[in-house]
Amino acid sequence: MQCVPFKLVSPNSRTYSKAYDRHKIRVSSKQRALNVLLVVGDCVLVGLQPILVYMSKVDGKFNFSPLSVNFLIEAAKVLFAIVMLLFQARHQKVGEKPLLSISTFVQAARNNVLLAVPALLYAINNYLKFIMQLYFNPATVKMLSNLKVLVIAVLLKFIMRRRFSIIQWEALALLLIGISVNQLRSLPEGTSAMGLPVATGAYIYTLIFVTVPSMASVFNEYAMKSQYDTSIYLQNVFLYGYGAIFNFLAILGTVVVKGPSSFNILEGHSKATMLLIFNNAAQGILSSFFFKYADTILKKYSSTVATIFTGIASAALFGHTLTINFMLGISIVFISMHQFFSPLAKVKDEQQNGITELRDVPEKLKYVLSLSLSHTHTHTLTPSGQSVRNSFG
Amino acid sequence: MQCVPFKLVSPNSRTYSKAYDRHKIRVSSKQRALNVLLVVGDCVLVGLQPILVYMSKVDGKFNFSPLSVNFLIEAAKVLFAIVMLLFQARHQKVGEKPLLSISTFVQAARNNVLLAVPALLYAINNYLKFIMQLYFNPATVKMLSNLKVLVIAVLLKFIMRRRFSIIQWEALALLLIGISVNQLRSLPEGTSAMGLPVATGAYIYTLIFVTVPSMASVFNEYAMKSQYDTSIYLQNVFLYGYGAIFNFLAILGTVVVKGPSSFNILEGHSKATMLLIFNNAAQGILSSFFFKYADTILKKYSSTVATIFTGIASAALFGHTLTINFMLGISIVFISMHQFFSPLAKVKDEQQNGITELRDVPEKLKYVLSLSLSHTHTHTLTPSGQSVRNSFG
Repeated sequence: MQCVPFKLVSPNSRTYSKAYDRHKIRVSSKQRALNVLLVVGDCVLVGLQPILVYMSKVDGKFNFSPLSVNFLIEAAKVLFAIVMLLFQARHQKVGEKPLLSISTFVQAARNNVLLAVPALLYAINNYLKFIMQLYFNPATVKMLSNLKVLVIAVLLKFIMRRRFSIIQWEALALLLIGISVNQLRSLPEGTSAMGLPVATGAYIYTLIFVTVPSMASVFNEYAMKSQYDTSIYLQNVFLYGYGAIFNFLAILGTVVVKGPSSFNILEGHSKATMLLIFNNAAQGILSSFFFKYADTILKKYSSTVATIFTGIASAALFGHTLTINFMLGISIVFISMHQFFSPLAKVKDEQQNGITELRDVPEKLKYVLSLSLSHTHTHTLTPSGQSVRNSFG
Repeated sequence: MQCVPFKLVSPNSRTYSKAYDRHKIRVSSKQRALNVLLVVGDCVLVGLQPILVYMSKVDGKFNFSPLSVNFLIEAAKVLFAIVMLLFQARHQKVGEKPLLSISTFVQAARNNVLLAVPALLYAINNYLKFIMQLYFNPATVKMLSNLKVLVIAVLLKFIMRRRFSIIQWEALALLLIGISVNQLRSLPEGTSAMGLPVATGAYIYTLIFVTVPSMASVFNEYAMKSQYDTSIYLQNVFLYGYGAIFNFLAILGTVVVKGPSSFNILEGHSKATMLLIFNNAAQGILSSFFFKYADTILKKYSSTVATIFTGIASAALFGHTLTINFMLGISIVFISMHQFFSPLAKVKDEQQNGITELRDVPEKLKYVLSLSLSHTHTHTLTPSGQSVRNSFG
């Protein structure tokens, strides 16, 4: 499996942390390389997932409790984060704030208490997934969860004050449509847009099912970036520490309700399931890099590209034929991706920035420049140009 | 059935007829209204088509020879064109070149001899349709004919020297994909992208089947616009006159090969089939207005919108449910339409025009303006602005 590098331009965003803004200006040249690295890493980990799932099954099903897996994944993430923190602390330069001092830890913990919010939302989401499968068939759940892309964009607009151009909104709609077209064949025959098998109250579950993970991602991005000066390794320790606590509380709750027989965290695991847990933990750690150094939308595109390459790889390896749905779907996704990250899609925004930066230009010239920068009819340019010559020349 | 008006901006095109260019500048304000009128008319005529087809069938099939229908449609078009020409001639203002004089007719016939090319291509296309149905099933033929959109765009680029932005190329690809998604369900179950039922040699038929009608449309647009000063009513008389001749020759050829028993032009027709023929003739006349006063791409979008509204209307009237395919397909088509006609999609082009029009502006200012107009990083603006102040202020 390979991930071809594609043009990535970091999406435009508004001020919410001065440290993050300083970072943006400093490393904007390195941003593309980092983005490509993140996407390639994501592709590899997501690509390994179905292989590990296949290896983890015994007689076609899992032997372990799904409840325990969530806790073990969170615990593995904390372990990863601590190992990376120790590694980072050993390579600190002289004069940098010590990563492992108690005062640093306490101060960072106080500053990053906001990370408990996404951790709680993620924990809730893990249980929602099970509930949803009682109400919808898996293909419908998949189809509905595509709506997350648009919910995330709306949340980014209001929480992160990010601005999207019309072309970018359309690109996100196309991403949603492209993924749906790819999944069309898996829907039960004869399902119509108006005839989705929705029970009363299922609409509310759908709304919650789509909104909770979207809010988790966006709050995660917000919390990560708003404390930009805190080391990401420390932030990971907090985020996944909270996650492990919430998941452990859920297990304790189950023990109280169902009795101690359900307290079987380590039952039914093999080497393959351990690899599966480690792969999921690595995906989690990687996603926090996405949220801090890139953004939630890039993460979404990355997951989609990973799914596409997994599809192509499995077709190549196991000799499946690629359906027309798949071909049409990935065409839409790639057009969407190109449009979302195209500089053309945010031309208006850049030009507005351009105008605000003309501080040292004479008033008359400013007027001409603003005329030329705005999208008015180009014929108005020549008379303005002439009047400028009359004044200056 | 209703056609909602949508934003139409006439696509940018290069010089190929001075008369056409004069026209473009003169009526650019009326262009939108005309475009909407053309699309609404097209929607009504295309919408009537399936109703008339249903009424024309006796026991589920046509009683008339398909060969004869083509000739009768061409003959009806000539009749329409002559009636409209006479009507136009009666309403001529004093001082205008007389439409009905023999010298006008002969000169126009000489100038518009190029119209024989699209007429011949259309005649060939009528027979290709029958051949294609021997090699492919009707759903596959439909799917393949979607490729015409892209072929037309390529031909417009090379023959009409029209320029499309990347967003516009993507919009055309989306139009093709959107129509295909809508048709997906009608494909036989299990058809895969690699497994289309293509016999050897069918690729060549496909290429011809897609290229001939596309070339017919683009040559038609070229011929219509290159003799812009000739009345469209006269041009129609020539175009469909040639068409009637070519179709009549084909019928004669069939008579020679198969014997006089196949010479049954008027056999099996009813009032409904006559209405069907008149509807088709009216569509033909309307399309020549598209080619002369708008363009081939708008015609394509118009047909697609008409098909969509027919689908919605038939769902509303006959209580069909709208499939997910249909909903996804029309979403893609509407995004495509918005992107193709969006002013944002051709921003680069307008700005390049802007630069060429800065004739009376001092050299230094020209440089600043070109900097601000080009998509370079906006930070370069401030130092340039300062240097301008140093020179002029």
